[in-house]
Amino acid sequence: MIADLNIDIPAWFKEKAEAARPQIKDIDSAMALAIEFSAENIRRGHGGPFGAVVIRADDHSLVAAGANLVTSRGLSSLHAEVVALSLAQRMLKTWDLHSAGELILVSSCEPCIMCMGATIWSGVTHLVCGARGSDAELAGFDEGPKPEHWEDQLRQRGIAVQVDVQRDAAAKVLAHYASGGGKIYNARGQS
Amino acid sequence: MIADLNIDIPAWFKEKAEAARPQIKDIDSAMALAIEFSAENIRRGHGGPFGAVVIRADDHSLVAAGANLVTSRGLSSLHAEVVALSLAQRMLKTWDLHSAGELILVSSCEPCIMCMGATIWSGVTHLVCGARGSDAELAGFDEGPKPEHWEDQLRQRGIAVQVDVQRDAAAKVLAHYASGGGKIYNARGQS
Repeated sequence: MIADLNIDIPAWFKEKAEAARPQIKDIDSAMALAIEFSAENIRRGHGGPFGAVVIRADDHSLVAAGANLVTSRGLSSLHAEVVALSLAQRMLKTWDLHSAGELILVSSCEPCIMCMGATIWSGVTHLVCGARGSDAELAGFDEGPKPEHWEDQLRQRGIAVQVDVQRDAAAKVLAHYASGGGKIYNARGQS
Repeated sequence: MIADLNIDIPAWFKEKAEAARPQIKDIDSAMALAIEFSAENIRRGHGGPFGAVVIRADDHSLVAAGANLVTSRGLSSLHAEVVALSLAQRMLKTWDLHSAGELILVSSCEPCIMCMGATIWSGVTHLVCGARGSDAELAGFDEGPKPEHWEDQLRQRGIAVQVDVQRDAAAKVLAHYASGGGKIYNARGQS
């Protein structure tokens, strides 16, 4: 049996985040960074074309940034949102981010059903999305059986939701991944 | 920024799993182990009262076992199912468990919305549940906005679902946790 579950975070996450830190001052700059993470992740071959960033709601300063690590780290739960939320929770030393203040999860794509749940349990109070779930599906990914009005479900739980922020730029990365024959990492190759 | 995301797995996971290994030969013995993990996790104070086990569908041999580690490891995504599936993926060296054969996730409780998604993406072909989501809700936990017919959604994706296996024994652990004033670890203390 395995004694540890170590997830080696690529060095470029830290380098890219630190280099961008001075520029992160609003939702738009945070989304640009999330999209950059999605694109860089393709170039590095570390996982699916998804990036996510956690920022503070008050001054929009950067807390954590990450990308999908499913294929390179061998764990199907390492979607970009889970990676970024986990890094933020370790950074702020709490499993409940709300206890550290109001935080925003900025993701290059709308959440799949797992990440929708992960967002609720994380304690963030805002979710901002770039590409739509339908853009991910066009690229061959599966969003899972999400409730039809998923944004409303999050809002009912106190999480403000904003979609279509730089949607075109985010969707372009997904299309690029698909056209390049990128691996669709859903279990059993389902699309 | 954090460079790693190491998750220290408690030593008792391995000890308990190895001690039980010779007895795991069917669904019932696997569920008994999942429930034991849920109960031991309360005694150890390592997280919520949930346990999960991954076994092979052909000979029902044990692959991995775990419990909820949210509060002790500081990550809100570490529900028992995610922990057990991750350990199985590391053990079998693949993010797609289906590539390693047909595997069964045996959980002491029905999945929340996040773990429903995690189950789909993991590549397991069977899910077996002990307590119902309503039992967890009675104890103060939140299942999240799951689709109404969640079992059907999994079945449509090729995952066989069996519920109410040793439900009473599993629900008893949840009730015990609640009556003992156990921490409800949903973000922002929502119940």
